Amino acid sequence: GIVARCKTRTVGGDNESVYRQIVETIQCALDKAEIGRDGLEAVGIAVPGPIDLDRGVVLDTPNVGISNFPLVDRLSGELGCAVLLENDVNAGLWGEYVAGAAKGMRNVVGIFPGTGIGGGLILDGKLYRGKSGAAGEIGHITVQTDGRRCGCGNHGCLETVASKTAIARDLVLLAMNGQSKVLAEAGATDIRLIKSGLIAKALEAGEPAVAAVVAQAARFLGVGMAAMVNTFDPEMVVIGGGLVEKVGSHITDIAVSTMRERAMPRIVADVAVATAALGDDAVVVGAADLTRR
Amino acid sequence: GIVARCKTRTVGGDNESVYRQIVETIQCALDKAEIGRDGLEAVGIAVPGPIDLDRGVVLDTPNVGISNFPLVDRLSGELGCAVLLENDVNAGLWGEYVAGAAKGMRNVVGIFPGTGIGGGLILDGKLYRGKSGAAGEIGHITVQTDGRRCGCGNHGCLETVASKTAIARDLVLLAMNGQSKVLAEAGATDIRLIKSGLIAKALEAGEPAVAAVVAQAARFLGVGMAAMVNTFDPEMVVIGGGLVEKVGSHITDIAVSTMRERAMPRIVADVAVATAALGDDAVVVGAADLTRR
Repeated sequence: GIVARCKTRTVGGDNESVYRQIVETIQCALDKAEIGRDGLEAVGIAVPGPIDLDRGVVLDTPNVGISNFPLVDRLSGELGCAVLLENDVNAGLWGEYVAGAAKGMRNVVGIFPGTGIGGGLILDGKLYRGKSGAAGEIGHITVQTDGRRCGCGNHGCLETVASKTAIARDLVLLAMNGQSKVLAEAGATDIRLIKSGLIAKALEAGEPAVAAVVAQAARFLGVGMAAMVNTFDPEMVVIGGGLVEKVGSHITDIAVSTMRERAMPRIVADVAVATAALGDDAVVVGAADLTRR
Repeated sequence: GIVARCKTRTVGGDNESVYRQIVETIQCALDKAEIGRDGLEAVGIAVPGPIDLDRGVVLDTPNVGISNFPLVDRLSGELGCAVLLENDVNAGLWGEYVAGAAKGMRNVVGIFPGTGIGGGLILDGKLYRGKSGAAGEIGHITVQTDGRRCGCGNHGCLETVASKTAIARDLVLLAMNGQSKVLAEAGATDIRLIKSGLIAKALEAGEPAVAAVVAQAARFLGVGMAAMVNTFDPEMVVIGGGLVEKVGSHITDIAVSTMRERAMPRIVADVAVATAALGDDAVVVGAADLTRR
């Protein structure tokens, strides 16, 4: 179980300054748990971005500001214990698998709409990573062959139409043109101000234009889920992330019904869908469990 | 190695008549190999359609006419040896993996455009089947969310735009409206007359309208391949099937260049693409090897 928690919002910067914040956060958790560094058996650490698992290197983290950094070597040197590095989506899905929504399943597809759309795969009871640890980029399957250009260079990727960013892009217009009072009052013509909580507030106020934008994204999410069901024949699809936690059934109802309409009947009939159960704890629990193994 | 071959074109009919043809074909191969039934160690059999692996039952074969048939029980009773049932796409991909184009790889996506689009997955060195043996339905990932209705009930499935059937659907029009002499002379306004060999002949004659139809399908195939590369991070994608054997680079050049343009650069950079090397033998070699294991 979890014996102590410490949470720090990363202040962007260079590798060294982010690294110091990581060490301080670990120290803070140790202090709260009243454990010395010599009482530490191992550290599991999950980062939002691609990693080199074999070398223990963080390759890139667009939202944290650490890149090409040998985090495992540095941390294990400083703390004097084993350190395991994992991608945050994989760690979170693994947490749901060992202690949350996907307990007892063997084949699980995890899909996490946020800034982009994260994806994770548990196949035959194991985390599937592919040749270079990059597997599960579900946000970059094409659902509209001649759709919008994506940050990855492709066109019509799932995340161009079903991520929180895609929703926010459409909502700024509603903030401007008067179709959403809630968004206008929040000054949310600036896309950076459209957070999951604000989207939830506009939905709860019953604004139909906002509901239509979210419904369209949810439908595309269901199209992507159907593709994954047909590809993986899984026991369960787990949907999670901050947006899903905040708006819940406003997204999941349409996503799941679209998935059931569009996936192959004989495959989808007995596929369960669950929302992630552990919240932020999933990543911590998953990283710790992967480290123990 | 292969010591004898016997090939029979199935004459459609009921379960029993198809079953008799299977037994006769096995007997024919035994006769050619000069082996009696008591010299038979095991039989591996692959069928074009969904199976129940655990119960050894052929669930459905749209083009053969056998369904809900306990093939493993019947054959092992009749031949007095172990029988393994597999799906033909899985068996063929496994054959390429143990003895053909994908030898030495660990993660392989197989894609086989034909009447539909077959797909197979070798992940971490094993055939991946999913919860019910139905995994790998790559033909039914959506590439056009509001595209044509597919036989499966979904809209805009990859196979509605990239299968041999999708190509044939567009070519009948060219046979009628005079844009393809080769097709018109073959009387190919009837979609059933458009075979892979005839498509190859029209392409070799340099007919631009035919080339454009094939190029469009090849582009969509590349879109699907890119989605699979982003999802699986594989070492290799194998493309095969009768159409690819007949028209080769007319499809693979555009499919591969589209895949490389559209998949995530860091994932696709070191993905190899190969055309299936063993032809029809892949299925036989794969079924035999799976049976031995």
